[in-house]
Amino acid sequence: MKVKVIVTTKANVLDPQGAAVERAMHSMGYEGVEHMRIGKYMEFELSAATEAEAKEQVERMCKVLLSNPVVEDYRYELEA
Amino acid sequence: MKVKVIVTTKANVLDPQGAAVERAMHSMGYEGVEHMRIGKYMEFELSAATEAEAKEQVERMCKVLLSNPVVEDYRYELEA
Repeated sequence: MKVKVIVTTKANVLDPQGAAVERAMHSMGYEGVEHMRIGKYMEFELSAATEAEAKEQVERMCKVLLSNPVVEDYRYELEA
Repeated sequence: MKVKVIVTTKANVLDPQGAAVERAMHSMGYEGVEHMRIGKYMEFELSAATEAEAKEQVERMCKVLLSNPVVEDYRYELEA
């Protein structure tokens, strides 16, 4: 099973990296860019007996290792 | 228009960060994780006259600023 995880900072948390890239985009003439937010993308193969078990494992991985639930949100997709 | 960009290292390029996280997952008991690859996720608002113009701008942004075409691949989605 292929797993794709996206982790982003929560909307109310400052994203200095996103702000910096946004400024760089503006300085390169891309004035139309706004609200830039930068996060992490992770993909991996996961062997699990069932999709339900895979889902449960990914939830735990996201909470414990792949994101910081205090300041980050996560979402994921499972592809059979 | 909302733009979502995903940048990942090319398949033939070593991904030490992915390998490190994979080892950490194994050490935490998630033996079923393989081929972990880690990339960047970016989302932003883009004002452009047409979807075609937005697509053209995003292509250029990805090539010039958001990714390193020598070692990275990019893909993106436009949401009206």
